[in-house]
Amino acid sequence: MLGVRHLATRMRPYDLIRAKRDGEALPPETIQEFVAAFMEDDVSDAEMAAFLMAVYFKGLSAAETAALTQAMVESGETLDLSGIRGPTVDKHSTGGVGDKTSLVVVPLVASAGARVAKLSGRALGHTGGTLDKLEAIPGLRVELEPHVLIAQVNRVGCAIAGQSAKLVPADKRLYALRDRTATVNSVPLIASSIMSKKIASGSRAIVLDVKTGSGAFMKTPAESRALAAAMVAIGRAAGRRTAAVLSSMEQPLGRTVGNAVEVGEAIRTLRGEGPDDVKELSLALGAQMLVMAGIAPDAAGARERLEGALARGDGARMLAAMIEAQGGDPDVVEHPERLPRAKFEQPVPARADGFVTAIDAEAIGYAAIALGAGRAKAGDRIDPGAGIILERKIGHAVRRGDALVMLRAGSETRMAEAGRRVLDAYQIGPETPGAPSLLLDVIA
Amino acid sequence: MLGVRHLATRMRPYDLIRAKRDGEALPPETIQEFVAAFMEDDVSDAEMAAFLMAVYFKGLSAAETAALTQAMVESGETLDLSGIRGPTVDKHSTGGVGDKTSLVVVPLVASAGARVAKLSGRALGHTGGTLDKLEAIPGLRVELEPHVLIAQVNRVGCAIAGQSAKLVPADKRLYALRDRTATVNSVPLIASSIMSKKIASGSRAIVLDVKTGSGAFMKTPAESRALAAAMVAIGRAAGRRTAAVLSSMEQPLGRTVGNAVEVGEAIRTLRGEGPDDVKELSLALGAQMLVMAGIAPDAAGARERLEGALARGDGARMLAAMIEAQGGDPDVVEHPERLPRAKFEQPVPARADGFVTAIDAEAIGYAAIALGAGRAKAGDRIDPGAGIILERKIGHAVRRGDALVMLRAGSETRMAEAGRRVLDAYQIGPETPGAPSLLLDVIA
Repeated sequence: MLGVRHLATRMRPYDLIRAKRDGEALPPETIQEFVAAFMEDDVSDAEMAAFLMAVYFKGLSAAETAALTQAMVESGETLDLSGIRGPTVDKHSTGGVGDKTSLVVVPLVASAGARVAKLSGRALGHTGGTLDKLEAIPGLRVELEPHVLIAQVNRVGCAIAGQSAKLVPADKRLYALRDRTATVNSVPLIASSIMSKKIASGSRAIVLDVKTGSGAFMKTPAESRALAAAMVAIGRAAGRRTAAVLSSMEQPLGRTVGNAVEVGEAIRTLRGEGPDDVKELSLALGAQMLVMAGIAPDAAGARERLEGALARGDGARMLAAMIEAQGGDPDVVEHPERLPRAKFEQPVPARADGFVTAIDAEAIGYAAIALGAGRAKAGDRIDPGAGIILERKIGHAVRRGDALVMLRAGSETRMAEAGRRVLDAYQIGPETPGAPSLLLDVIA
Repeated sequence: MLGVRHLATRMRPYDLIRAKRDGEALPPETIQEFVAAFMEDDVSDAEMAAFLMAVYFKGLSAAETAALTQAMVESGETLDLSGIRGPTVDKHSTGGVGDKTSLVVVPLVASAGARVAKLSGRALGHTGGTLDKLEAIPGLRVELEPHVLIAQVNRVGCAIAGQSAKLVPADKRLYALRDRTATVNSVPLIASSIMSKKIASGSRAIVLDVKTGSGAFMKTPAESRALAAAMVAIGRAAGRRTAAVLSSMEQPLGRTVGNAVEVGEAIRTLRGEGPDDVKELSLALGAQMLVMAGIAPDAAGARERLEGALARGDGARMLAAMIEAQGGDPDVVEHPERLPRAKFEQPVPARADGFVTAIDAEAIGYAAIALGAGRAKAGDRIDPGAGIILERKIGHAVRRGDALVMLRAGSETRMAEAGRRVLDAYQIGPETPGAPSLLLDVIA
């Protein structure tokens, strides 16, 4: 660990802030020293906040971003996956609404020979969290000690678990500071935050799903592309095979938003009964994962293997094995109706005839929170059986009074706000819009 | 005082930072609430640092700058000069090397009927401080309670005293934060820092000497002009008659740099024996002071009055009266040789024949610090008898071996570094340069 002694002899915090403010290139080692000194409280929150705002305006070069990421990784423990037999590959999404692809793609690629030890997060703002979804499965544990995680991956093929607080503590401190100082929305800072956790999680290959659109943190394809490029560069600088898929988040993914409802949809997708968009995105991400893991030579060959695995039900069996290994009830794969279901269900009827021209995914995410399926603030309890089933998506015809969605909640009082948000989210026009494209690009 | 309750209902710190980051106009009351909350520790140093860096990049409008200044003024006590009979006028310099004009102009304009209750500062970095200079006069006190200050101005005509720590505490906290976070060098932040102190000091009129050049904080006329315009706008928004003189700091002002040596030169100027540049700048500033105080209708008439006062020795008598009122030995005005003088004196000889083409004022300032006439760090003791006498200035002919300057110090060991710095500061060329202009503009 580099400490303040080096800082004093090499670059004072003031000089580092001033140099970034003036757009000068910072030597990578000074960034690493700065972050290390911050974690030892030798650089103050105020100095770091000024630096972060200077980065907001002046950016970071690829070398600076890689150095920042490396410093964050070195701030805590890292997961050593060298005990896993076979090629490890990780997957990360920048966050969407109705995005259950991890639940599909992790078992699917594991069934094709990749080894996946995935550390996931909880619901944040309007976007869902894979851990919350998994916990909708009765009995399932997501807190796995590293040796348990590794043993499960070797025995079963995959595991999805919560991230230890000891991994990348610098990210937690920096993110909290960014969140208070309006410096979250910076491509190199977002990229280093995400990639520090992926690199510390130990997989040799990483595939990123970078979302674009009204329901994503990045609202335009240009922003998403810049973020994807920054993350791929960081991964490669750290010696990881890295690729990114750019996908659309202009409407919720699939037909469900919530926890149990999304698990059910993931199961249906693995059984060949899922909606096209969930299947297509899962195949696109899975294909990149197999290529990055070195299992398939190219995306076309990888996709063929994954379609075979889907057809044979290999992915569904792998999901059941993973659920069983983590203490959950594997029969939910055969019988998704065993998943929890909130007591009350009610439709949100359309107010006009026409075609659905837009569905604001972020607003649907907040409607799900209103139902109890997400968190309005950290620490809120989630109702696993609450959620939204989308009966109409973009391009569908609708008549006044038809159900746009079905709401599920544990109490009827939660329905009113969710219903208002759903009506605000749906736009209905006289003409059918073009089908929105789901897959925008692959950066590999 | 507006507290966090208002902030919570009107604009969160986060929203204020984000709005400034995005270049939006901030309502003046939100800036005032933000500063008030900062002083109550409801806004953190980190939030303020991020805001200051956003201001560094995005600036502040005139209305925003006025609001910031007002908030700083309201953070502490203000000096109520309403007990002073006659028109009060204050003067401030942005800081130079060899700048003893306050010691000339304060008694001079007081002798012409203006009332001056001036609060001054200490030496900072390479620039001198009026309080340190005054304290070179044996016995003189600069710590005056407000009622003593006001009584002295009514009895004598003027006073120069130290600023109470209770005046503008927000400036002290903000400046300390800016100094650590590379956000000092921002025109609206500099302007609000200076003007908050001037406004809190209570005079109805304010004249600013904004320095430009190698020895000043503002290195170009454009920067100085922007700072002057910002300060004049703040003063007017606060209901003070305000004017600014732009003057050159491309070489030290006058022939002396130090404390006792500068007091001696100020006295000689008041006796009509001073160097032209000190006299000219003092007359220019003094004329603006009389105009702003409403004593003279225009600068030409004001200057005539001041030349008369100089010729009659009114200014010198006023200085003696002020020194006596503050407990100092007034005989130094008749006998400047009574001022302290360091034990050792030695010349710095020129190394070539030619003409002096440039004198780096900042380097001369650091040479004076090396002699003990300034502070390398806060709290250093100053040797009042140490300093530099400039034997050659820009345009003067010099022959190898001629003294460029005489150094004075309390020990011979201090001479070597000062000598090196002086030699680095002087440039000698084969041709005489044009005479540099001292007075660049008046913004009134």
